[in-house]
Amino acid sequence: MNPVERHPHCELCQQDGGILIVKTEKLRVVRVDDADYPGFYRVIWNDHAAEFTDLSPADQVPCLAAVALVETLVRQHLKPTKVNLASLGNVVPHLHWHVIARFADDKHFPQPIWGQAQREVPADRWQDLRQALPALDQAIKDAVLTSPQ
Amino acid sequence: MNPVERHPHCELCQQDGGILIVKTEKLRVVRVDDADYPGFYRVIWNDHAAEFTDLSPADQVPCLAAVALVETLVRQHLKPTKVNLASLGNVVPHLHWHVIARFADDKHFPQPIWGQAQREVPADRWQDLRQALPALDQAIKDAVLTSPQ
Repeated sequence: MNPVERHPHCELCQQDGGILIVKTEKLRVVRVDDADYPGFYRVIWNDHAAEFTDLSPADQVPCLAAVALVETLVRQHLKPTKVNLASLGNVVPHLHWHVIARFADDKHFPQPIWGQAQREVPADRWQDLRQALPALDQAIKDAVLTSPQ
Repeated sequence: MNPVERHPHCELCQQDGGILIVKTEKLRVVRVDDADYPGFYRVIWNDHAAEFTDLSPADQVPCLAAVALVETLVRQHLKPTKVNLASLGNVVPHLHWHVIARFADDKHFPQPIWGQAQREVPADRWQDLRQALPALDQAIKDAVLTSPQ
């Protein structure tokens, strides 16, 4: 695939898709600014590809390695109950992996975040976790930049 | 990790978790018998591991290769609008990857299947696709058994 292939009408070809943490030649990691989910990142393939298997096997490996790297650091820094990984793309069919720290008392747990809300969460519940985000963002940036591409 | 590690109270340690298509030493593929989603498979790690990153990097690669292989064959046989991949495990924290063929007129599209239903689907909508499943099941079985583990 052409390394600079961009589609004019694709949101993730035209925009970062969140708070840009780090960008390499092939992919980027963004953090989603979500009031209910402090530890919510996306690994986005830079080129336009709809499905994971639109990537060559040689590209699938570093793509998933980046997802695993973000998951590892999210676990280390935020100690979530569970991490949810998903590549859906029904609305924006440009390959992006959600990496979402889930907590037993979060808005939808144990449902997926796209499911029915299970509870109201106090506004200050995520205050401590949010304070941990700058260090987590930096750790993700450092790790992605030093990982094999 | 011990190759026969099984937890007595974990559903996916004790049961196949769907219609068993193929099982190797490390993982299995099952098809989910879902009235709304004919092309719904799961790649399940045999050993008990909660998170994808509980697998060693050496195991992550063949695990994701199996997911990619199922996605590839689902695309070839069913021609879905989109494939959804997800490792959630909030309810059953034993590593399993959902591989779900999505169609523009399915029950939840473009929402995730865990979201709000978008429409009623005629009972015979999936009849043709269901007839394609035996060949797809067989193709997945053959491909997994001949892929590197």
